[in-house]
Amino acid sequence: MTQAATFEQLWSAIADIGRDPTTGGYRRFAWTEADLRMREWFSGECASRGLDLIEDRMGNQWAWWGDPDSSPTGGVATGSHLDSVPDGGAFDGPLGVVSALLAIDRLRSDGFTPQRPIGVVNFVDEEGARFGVSCAGSRVITGVLSPDRARALRDADGITMADAMRAARRPPEQLGPDPEALGRIGSFIELHVEQGRGLVELGRAIAVGNRIWPHGRWRIEIPGEANHAGTTMLSDRRDAVIGCARAVLAARTAAEAHGSLATIGKINIQPGGVNAIASSATAWLDARAADEPALRATVAQIENEAGGSGAVVTEESWTPQTAFDDALVSRLASLLDGAPVMGTGAGHDAGILANAGVPVAMIFVRNPTGVSHSPAEWAEPEDCLAGVAALATVLADLAGAQQ
Amino acid sequence: MTQAATFEQLWSAIADIGRDPTTGGYRRFAWTEADLRMREWFSGECASRGLDLIEDRMGNQWAWWGDPDSSPTGGVATGSHLDSVPDGGAFDGPLGVVSALLAIDRLRSDGFTPQRPIGVVNFVDEEGARFGVSCAGSRVITGVLSPDRARALRDADGITMADAMRAARRPPEQLGPDPEALGRIGSFIELHVEQGRGLVELGRAIAVGNRIWPHGRWRIEIPGEANHAGTTMLSDRRDAVIGCARAVLAARTAAEAHGSLATIGKINIQPGGVNAIASSATAWLDARAADEPALRATVAQIENEAGGSGAVVTEESWTPQTAFDDALVSRLASLLDGAPVMGTGAGHDAGILANAGVPVAMIFVRNPTGVSHSPAEWAEPEDCLAGVAALATVLADLAGAQQ
Repeated sequence: MTQAATFEQLWSAIADIGRDPTTGGYRRFAWTEADLRMREWFSGECASRGLDLIEDRMGNQWAWWGDPDSSPTGGVATGSHLDSVPDGGAFDGPLGVVSALLAIDRLRSDGFTPQRPIGVVNFVDEEGARFGVSCAGSRVITGVLSPDRARALRDADGITMADAMRAARRPPEQLGPDPEALGRIGSFIELHVEQGRGLVELGRAIAVGNRIWPHGRWRIEIPGEANHAGTTMLSDRRDAVIGCARAVLAARTAAEAHGSLATIGKINIQPGGVNAIASSATAWLDARAADEPALRATVAQIENEAGGSGAVVTEESWTPQTAFDDALVSRLASLLDGAPVMGTGAGHDAGILANAGVPVAMIFVRNPTGVSHSPAEWAEPEDCLAGVAALATVLADLAGAQQ
Repeated sequence: MTQAATFEQLWSAIADIGRDPTTGGYRRFAWTEADLRMREWFSGECASRGLDLIEDRMGNQWAWWGDPDSSPTGGVATGSHLDSVPDGGAFDGPLGVVSALLAIDRLRSDGFTPQRPIGVVNFVDEEGARFGVSCAGSRVITGVLSPDRARALRDADGITMADAMRAARRPPEQLGPDPEALGRIGSFIELHVEQGRGLVELGRAIAVGNRIWPHGRWRIEIPGEANHAGTTMLSDRRDAVIGCARAVLAARTAAEAHGSLATIGKINIQPGGVNAIASSATAWLDARAADEPALRATVAQIENEAGGSGAVVTEESWTPQTAFDDALVSRLASLLDGAPVMGTGAGHDAGILANAGVPVAMIFVRNPTGVSHSPAEWAEPEDCLAGVAALATVLADLAGAQQ
């Protein structure tokens, strides 16, 4: 084992990988050159720590301190992902991986000897930025995403995931559910930068994550009638863009009314000419709430208000609430000085594992602006170190005795 | 000369040219196969009538009954265009050309002998659907659009107008101002389907057009802050789509307040992801009004309301009112049983010629739905025949004596 690395050393080693020089944002998409460099960096850091690296059937990288196959209850896994959204921030994903490596360094310099193996994971393709399916790495090994469907997913250039993996020398034929890899995970703790300002408001550096909000995606189709913008009287118009604008504002109003989140970030207008009254518009609604009744009520209100423009709302996806492990969450909260417990609106590999029956909890690190998925994403160095310390405490506790 | 054709005969001959079988709309774009077939049809109809066809330096087709070069005051020209917008209607353009041919047939069957030459024109590329500049045919021959700029215009496939003309065997080197062609036009009467329901409300089949409203195009840039739709509290958001929706509704409100037209038909959202709060949005505003103060007030109100979202409004184009020839308009109105006189919000080759000093008036034919630039565009057969009769009356009057 090398001398314990500092946070700054690990962080600066990956700071330039996949970074757009113009925006400062990251473009680390699954199986691209930038992703492969991140994976190679991860392998090197694990090798230098004497951890045993295992790739599962999807190519997720697991590095173990101790033999997970020799533990009847599996090991204690932590980690996150190293890919990014387009123009993503530095913290979403990498903070969890870097913190895991540093937590192991800390345990070792403290002379800790684990009674259960400790693993660090780098999940493949968490953001789904390239092939459109988030958490593809954990979805495939848990069987939620079928290997056939995964292999056939295409990126914007028409390249399939199978071909992308082949180009990266991973035979896509191996891809599939991996009960052996899952069997090694006795519990999973994912540390992640907070993607909101909950901790700022509470004045705390660290929180324990206990669940992922229910969320879904709806397609709102607004009808209109094509016509000439220069000659059609206002009273004769059926302008789909007007109905679309009302739907956008209705989404905000409904979210305010129900304490939920509702966002329209993608709109398609036909025919889309500057002097053409729109014949149709499609808006995609992303909505999430702390509980399902609030979420259903939010969408119902939007549907009701948008219906005045003749809009048709279709559910494209629905993900119920994902609850993490109650006992694990309570244990983390008490280990971490009564850290606040909070849910999150974002999806994570932790949620996929939780749904597959793995005992899961998360640790969130304060984000001063709350901004994520943006080059402005940030966490203060002292909060990152508090995250490492918290993770080390949790790992020491969970791996400290056979359970 | 062949026996006089009926409206139905001429209309059915072109009904299938460039028509999309799925939508029923037309795709007759400049210098495409469909456009060349329309031009060939026009040449044939002119030849069968013994008219002398002259192509000017832009390829606009002029067919003369009588020698326009022998008339000291030029001839009386009529006609319109045969190209279309994407998925356009059957009437916008072709109605003016077909009516011109039928008006000549009618004058001849009435035994009329013109004292001044009568010409029928098919203007090239009025809609600008392919190369993005409307009225390209009249703009080039009047010098408003420079030949260099015209030749360099590119279509969606990157093909320049020069290459498109070359492929159609028109040497683009000839393209340029054509004072000789303009000198032949003593006056110009363009018959066009109405693109609104003014005549429906008046209960009349025919109107005289006296001017084109002032109009312009503005770019509205709305700032935002990229963030995660699933985790960012509403109060922390700066969502460009919300500002954009407010601008869309502000445009409608301002148009209602000032009796003008304001339309947003094209919107661009960045980054445009379903779970991404938009970091910016750009909306294009098309606005027109019966007079310039109303138009300026409309845009100022939109700018003021959108400014609350931090939006920046930039004028991309401004076209002042185009007045047609007062004496000619009055003469047409009195010839046509006191037909109502009205302006239009749409641009026409007639407007380009008017700005070049040609005495111009228009004749509008009732449109029962007011819909245009759409497969639903329509005019009743009896109104089309009323248009032919009106045009024949006007031509007989204007060409009936040396003036």
